[in-house]
Amino acid sequence: MTNRRPSTNGVREAAARIAGAVTITSLLPLDWEGRRIWIKPECLQQSGAFKLRGATNRLRRLDEAARVRGVVAFSSGNHAQGIAVAAQRMGITATIVMPADAPGVKVEATRAAGAEIIFFDRATESREEIGARLAAERGATLVPSFDDVDVIEGQGTIGVEIEEQLGGPPPLVIIPCGGGGLSGGIALALPDSDILIAEPEGWDDMTRSLALGHIVPVEQPAPPTRCDALQTTLVSPLTFGALHEAGARGVAVSEAEVAAAMAFAFRHLRIVAEPGGAVALAALLAGKAGEVPDGSVVVVSGGNIDPHLFAEILTGSGQ
Amino acid sequence: MTNRRPSTNGVREAAARIAGAVTITSLLPLDWEGRRIWIKPECLQQSGAFKLRGATNRLRRLDEAARVRGVVAFSSGNHAQGIAVAAQRMGITATIVMPADAPGVKVEATRAAGAEIIFFDRATESREEIGARLAAERGATLVPSFDDVDVIEGQGTIGVEIEEQLGGPPPLVIIPCGGGGLSGGIALALPDSDILIAEPEGWDDMTRSLALGHIVPVEQPAPPTRCDALQTTLVSPLTFGALHEAGARGVAVSEAEVAAAMAFAFRHLRIVAEPGGAVALAALLAGKAGEVPDGSVVVVSGGNIDPHLFAEILTGSGQ
Repeated sequence: MTNRRPSTNGVREAAARIAGAVTITSLLPLDWEGRRIWIKPECLQQSGAFKLRGATNRLRRLDEAARVRGVVAFSSGNHAQGIAVAAQRMGITATIVMPADAPGVKVEATRAAGAEIIFFDRATESREEIGARLAAERGATLVPSFDDVDVIEGQGTIGVEIEEQLGGPPPLVIIPCGGGGLSGGIALALPDSDILIAEPEGWDDMTRSLALGHIVPVEQPAPPTRCDALQTTLVSPLTFGALHEAGARGVAVSEAEVAAAMAFAFRHLRIVAEPGGAVALAALLAGKAGEVPDGSVVVVSGGNIDPHLFAEILTGSGQ
Repeated sequence: MTNRRPSTNGVREAAARIAGAVTITSLLPLDWEGRRIWIKPECLQQSGAFKLRGATNRLRRLDEAARVRGVVAFSSGNHAQGIAVAAQRMGITATIVMPADAPGVKVEATRAAGAEIIFFDRATESREEIGARLAAERGATLVPSFDDVDVIEGQGTIGVEIEEQLGGPPPLVIIPCGGGGLSGGIALALPDSDILIAEPEGWDDMTRSLALGHIVPVEQPAPPTRCDALQTTLVSPLTFGALHEAGARGVAVSEAEVAAAMAFAFRHLRIVAEPGGAVALAALLAGKAGEVPDGSVVVVSGGNIDPHLFAEILTGSGQ
């Protein structure tokens, strides 16, 4: 199984595997410049982000012995919450390695779902090493946040849902991208749709990788960003491969464009989008998405954000 | 038709009439004190509130001659937006009479949907008189915000949707109540469900009317409330009748309980609830709803709120 690559069939199987365990999020209509755009609000997903899909798919594939030994994950928050909730429901012990500067709301929600949390210092420690050591010590299964076939296929179930909801594939899907699990999975689910990924400025390594045709890391020093969910410094061959083969393109958006998109989502869609969840909407609203045909879909991927930061963005954006 | 009363069959016919023109809002799961509660987030409805349902149902029943002469409505905001959007889609001219102190976001959205807005002073003028005069002058049809069979049946389509989504009627539905169009309609749609309505403290005239068995008005002077959508001073025999016959009960919630519910909805459901939209959730969270069986539904009815007020509530509530 380790040499298996994520596939369209795998995504469809994942959709059947996780049915009933995740919310089918309504497509919300948005009339934009004379066209009907559909918003896929995965911020309304249980745990507040699409991550529950991949987590549930991955954990349901564990055998009984592995379930008893538990799982380990490292994440700044949304993957942590997804794993914690999925594990709690299945009676699996979860240990989550989180950066010490992870948003408080994400730490609290992860703890509330019964997971053990181990903090690390983003500047001086490697979460990969801590996670691997913990997994080895405990015999637990390490569940990566995106570099995993089952995780990618689980996230891709959003694409299956979109196609069912629209009665066919949309012409274009615009998707937030950190490590590429979400966008890679959706690209596999919707092979006939154009795929545009959106990243924060300075963190647009997938965008540059797709343009170059090979993986390049985030250029250091990377600028500060409020998009904590998208601070991935190196994507994976699995996710890059899925997007590259789909002919996906990328675009980078500014912090101001993200804030404006969050305020727009508040006002016109009445949903709570976190910064990283709003980058695809930001690309649309800022006119950076190129031609966006009628019937295109924009994914809002998460809504876990500190209320004070949200309030600051709402009132400071001038929207 | 004027003597017709709203009915369960009428609600079912309305559901067929407006299908495709409104969003089927996802039921969002909430685990609360060991029970699974379902949130019906009508703040995600187009126009930001359930009002589009009743407006669409009412306008679709107008004949061609009436459509040409246009419609008039009076509303502090959500009914205004619902009428404006429904009218714009059908090419009908809409004139909306709004209080001068209506929330800016509601005024702007109503104007953006192409309606003409006429302001009045809540303290010195009667919106009913202004609306009736305008309708008479223009030959337009006056569409009341709740005292209308088609409007009530249109709002009740939420109940039809809930039953379809759950595969049967829920044991209990908790519903925000202003004039009672929403709750009366849902009571008709779900005759086998217990109905609990929620109102702001001091504006709990439907609660008191149901307890007394006859209609009583809001006691003056009524306290200030942020629940602008629920500032109805007298309910209608149509809405009271539907709720009374259903054996509905009522409960009043405080401004602080409403603010806490809005912050909870932000954080745990990632939806934007306006104060009036959050009163039923407030009743649940404050423990004022009595026994709430597993599988009960709470309606969040609207999400049109000024960003500064929302920010203030988010950061001031201590949640």
